[in-house]
Amino acid sequence: MKSTQKKPLILITNDDGFTAKGIQSLVEAVAEFGELMIVAPDSPQSGMGHAITINNPLRIQRIHYFGEHTAYNCSGTPVDCVKIGIYKLGDRKPDLILSGINHGSNVSTNVLYSGTMSAAIEGALCGVPSIGFSLLDYSVEADFTAAQHFVKEIVQKAIEQPMQEGICLNVNIPKLPLSEIKGIKVSKQARAFWDDTFDEREDPLKKKYYWLAGEFHNYDKGTDTDMWALENGYVSIVPTRYDLTAYKALEETHNQFGVEF
Amino acid sequence: MKSTQKKPLILITNDDGFTAKGIQSLVEAVAEFGELMIVAPDSPQSGMGHAITINNPLRIQRIHYFGEHTAYNCSGTPVDCVKIGIYKLGDRKPDLILSGINHGSNVSTNVLYSGTMSAAIEGALCGVPSIGFSLLDYSVEADFTAAQHFVKEIVQKAIEQPMQEGICLNVNIPKLPLSEIKGIKVSKQARAFWDDTFDEREDPLKKKYYWLAGEFHNYDKGTDTDMWALENGYVSIVPTRYDLTAYKALEETHNQFGVEF
Repeated sequence: MKSTQKKPLILITNDDGFTAKGIQSLVEAVAEFGELMIVAPDSPQSGMGHAITINNPLRIQRIHYFGEHTAYNCSGTPVDCVKIGIYKLGDRKPDLILSGINHGSNVSTNVLYSGTMSAAIEGALCGVPSIGFSLLDYSVEADFTAAQHFVKEIVQKAIEQPMQEGICLNVNIPKLPLSEIKGIKVSKQARAFWDDTFDEREDPLKKKYYWLAGEFHNYDKGTDTDMWALENGYVSIVPTRYDLTAYKALEETHNQFGVEF
Repeated sequence: MKSTQKKPLILITNDDGFTAKGIQSLVEAVAEFGELMIVAPDSPQSGMGHAITINNPLRIQRIHYFGEHTAYNCSGTPVDCVKIGIYKLGDRKPDLILSGINHGSNVSTNVLYSGTMSAAIEGALCGVPSIGFSLLDYSVEADFTAAQHFVKEIVQKAIEQPMQEGICLNVNIPKLPLSEIKGIKVSKQARAFWDDTFDEREDPLKKKYYWLAGEFHNYDKGTDTDMWALENGYVSIVPTRYDLTAYKALEETHNQFGVEF
């Protein structure tokens, strides 16, 4: 943590929108650790991935929804919220960025689709230690009690010793009472994928439209994955990087495609 | 390539929308290599990253914009185009997915914001060899002649020997005449980032709005990066993976956060 006389500045966002119970629970859990600034979408942004708003302007509104904490809603995506929070709204660079608590799982390859985790990845890109939290319960009235316990524990440790540059954390919490959670497992992303289907319907004008549907299948038999940890009663933490270079494939790719003229 | 009596099925998409010159140039360049199916956004989708459409249905329209080639436009994102192309519109799984040619660079960490590259990453997630192409020229009337040369060369090699599972290619082509391009360099993502600014304006009702702006800065002095390759007259290929696990940080993260109760 930077040496400063001020308390750590914690920027908080999510992808379910500022009215979600999950972000309220996150704010409650971490208020003791610093000065909070909430910048959250004004409407649900699930599945927005790392989208940014470039063809439209952004609207920002000061809101009084989180007690004494400084808070804004934003017409953009979770990544927009992080960018405008850091570069426009704050009086200094945040010391920590927290995203969530998401209503629902963000395990395995879902990190790529997840607005919650894309906000944390953007935080890491901006050089700020960042954590995304998700509870494996999609209900709007989900019980975040156990999740809050782990949020406190993880945030305290992250403030004491920030993650290395370029890494953020993807924390998923099982839908279990606190007494039944066995601990925290550091894991890798399971090799699990969507088998998508598209539900075809007809509108009143007899024109077709399609809903994305499908099932998520785990093809990974490992006991070192996020899905294994969660299925076995653990909180999962995956250290997550923004660098997508496949370093192990560099040589093979060079042999196949590299040419000098 | 799968043993099949049919020609390879090549699914083509982009993020600039189906009317862009870049996708037209891509279609022309690869028509000789297989049967094409174009599924492209009905409007520009730059900066949409890995967003998917889950709160709205998708509309699909058969279009006659690419001569004899089967083509659809889609109301969703580039990733939606790949999903609905694979799982709904095609009569078989594609053998190859190509995205682009993007009007403008997709180097370094911009892969995360890029609809072009997110489509290729989605292709890899679906188990299909995938390549994203970008030309370093944002102009709608950009000259794709040199780009088409490299597209043909790279696609031919990719058909002969598909990339390993979980890897797609990020190909960026400098804005140079073919005779001045020195070759193809296989590279890693440069450590380069946006220093964002937000341009604050007032609408006619005196309410503020903000445009995302900013400058992209390369902090990476390496000669093994995509930005170095492009600045020195090479086409850059970065092998790109969808797995965001920071494997090198697993042990450190375990030591800091792992707990069993």
